[in-house]
Amino acid sequence: MQLPTLAITLGDPAGIGPEIVLKALATKGVTDWCRPVVVGHLPSLERDISSVAGSVQLQHIEAVEEATHQPGTVNVITPPDLPAEPPPRGIVTAEGGAIAVACIRTAAALAVKEKVTAIVTAPINKAAMHAAGHIYPGHTELLAEIAGVKEFSLVLVAGRLHVFHTTTHIALREACKLITRDRVLATIRLARRFANAIGEPAPRIAVLGLNPHAGEDGLFGREDVTEIKPAVEAAQAEGIDAVGPLPGDTAMPKALHGGFDWVVAMYHDQGHIPFKAVHLDRGVNVTVGLPWLRTSVDHGTAFDIAGTGQANESSLLAAMRMAARLGPNWPNVGNSAR
Amino acid sequence: MQLPTLAITLGDPAGIGPEIVLKALATKGVTDWCRPVVVGHLPSLERDISSVAGSVQLQHIEAVEEATHQPGTVNVITPPDLPAEPPPRGIVTAEGGAIAVACIRTAAALAVKEKVTAIVTAPINKAAMHAAGHIYPGHTELLAEIAGVKEFSLVLVAGRLHVFHTTTHIALREACKLITRDRVLATIRLARRFANAIGEPAPRIAVLGLNPHAGEDGLFGREDVTEIKPAVEAAQAEGIDAVGPLPGDTAMPKALHGGFDWVVAMYHDQGHIPFKAVHLDRGVNVTVGLPWLRTSVDHGTAFDIAGTGQANESSLLAAMRMAARLGPNWPNVGNSAR
Repeated sequence: MQLPTLAITLGDPAGIGPEIVLKALATKGVTDWCRPVVVGHLPSLERDISSVAGSVQLQHIEAVEEATHQPGTVNVITPPDLPAEPPPRGIVTAEGGAIAVACIRTAAALAVKEKVTAIVTAPINKAAMHAAGHIYPGHTELLAEIAGVKEFSLVLVAGRLHVFHTTTHIALREACKLITRDRVLATIRLARRFANAIGEPAPRIAVLGLNPHAGEDGLFGREDVTEIKPAVEAAQAEGIDAVGPLPGDTAMPKALHGGFDWVVAMYHDQGHIPFKAVHLDRGVNVTVGLPWLRTSVDHGTAFDIAGTGQANESSLLAAMRMAARLGPNWPNVGNSAR
Repeated sequence: MQLPTLAITLGDPAGIGPEIVLKALATKGVTDWCRPVVVGHLPSLERDISSVAGSVQLQHIEAVEEATHQPGTVNVITPPDLPAEPPPRGIVTAEGGAIAVACIRTAAALAVKEKVTAIVTAPINKAAMHAAGHIYPGHTELLAEIAGVKEFSLVLVAGRLHVFHTTTHIALREACKLITRDRVLATIRLARRFANAIGEPAPRIAVLGLNPHAGEDGLFGREDVTEIKPAVEAAQAEGIDAVGPLPGDTAMPKALHGGFDWVVAMYHDQGHIPFKAVHLDRGVNVTVGLPWLRTSVDHGTAFDIAGTGQANESSLLAAMRMAARLGPNWPNVGNSAR
């Protein structure tokens, strides 16, 4: 079986992106489970190479097919027209933002042409991206535009726990209006497909309520009764082991302590705040709704420690493992998310 | 100085209420820092007395003034017309609900007459309360009705962390509409008064945003810019060290790991889910907006372990300590919450 090929984007070169990419690819055994290709900026990678213990060689390639998958060799595809020097470390610059965006665009082009199985992204700096004239709320919206999709969502993953979001980057009052039976049901189905794709045939899916105490039988809002409950019942009728709507402040703590592996949250902060409260920046972020799989680290550029050798590559490695595990089955999962 | 007198309500006698009340009052040194009076049901307390290590005597009293504050003596005021037998353990009964509500009403009457400094409540079962014909969403709404107040809120406390809620038991879409400059400012002021009352002269108060990423500069909702930011600025102009609006999914995890002691959340689940994700049921719940202080355990009746001697009294003890610490200063804090 061919190993999944991962396009790993550099992130903002002023941050810890180059360091964690190099450290992740220097990890023993990484080429046993994936074929990594870095989409990056050679001068920025060269600058950080001393932060990696052991021997790593950078190899510039023009096409994915040229990559040699040997331990210690880091294959790098370079977007056109990048500067000859790395941008200064630890600060917001238009050059840093431009390099980060160029790498994402090149990686997306490889995904569109099916040259790679998945995209794994290192962190970018939004202000730098904006300074470079690329006005997107973030990574995901840029990728969505390239892919031509409007509906996408995030799954946060840590260990066995997977938290799906029925709505994501949208005003909370608009999110409330989007909590419809059909949308909740689509998210439950997505969770089931996702679980199936990673080998869980019958996931138990905890569906959170929208309102406090899941609406307390309609006392604090009706959506739990009129939208979420029918969605859960429809899912059950399809043979999905869904439960809910459950009060967020009991079900989510329970999930975070091992009581549920699959959770459908209603809005961004309902999933993100408790997830990060427990797992901090150690989670993996999976984008669903794009035509290809994209996973991401769950932390920022950490400008404050850029170049110090202190950056931890574990979230990037986890994002790579998730991409390698899920990527080959992705056409069954993410494409028809909504 | 007179020690603060605490009215401790029994909760539903079918649950762990009687056991944790007895265990808490049997704790060494408890009469050194408060004068506890149990508002309860003697037969239910007698049934659970064997679960307490060491010697505890129940003493029936008619009025707070009759209480003798000696270690090992549990002074019990009994509401009128309670049944002679304890209700069955571990199940929802109308008798259990009726006893629980009667204890709350009697305790509230003592608070109204200023016979006690604060009320500390053990857990009730809502279905039992409803079965007894008392149709309230919960404890707090019953107390609010007795007090004749309509605006009240919750503070969750664990160690040094205090999480205030700008809105609480209300539909999320209604909560969004209530996020106004004035209401947020009132909650920030309340947090400052609360901090001052427990001896923190200059608390740093983290104010969370309403929308994902605190609205991303207005991209995902306007309230963060039009309401919360002006409230924070107005607070700063009053000399309050408030910061925000901060993205919930960075500020709340930071607070839960020691980065902020004082947090103003915008809605119930924004505070409750992450708080309980980290502190589980070990927090203390403080009600603000009532004319008297009320603290509460942050867990339920645990019918499944009632009568087994396994119940843990630490949350009740924490609620009692908070009541004893805060009660004497309460007129400066909670009365003018809104």
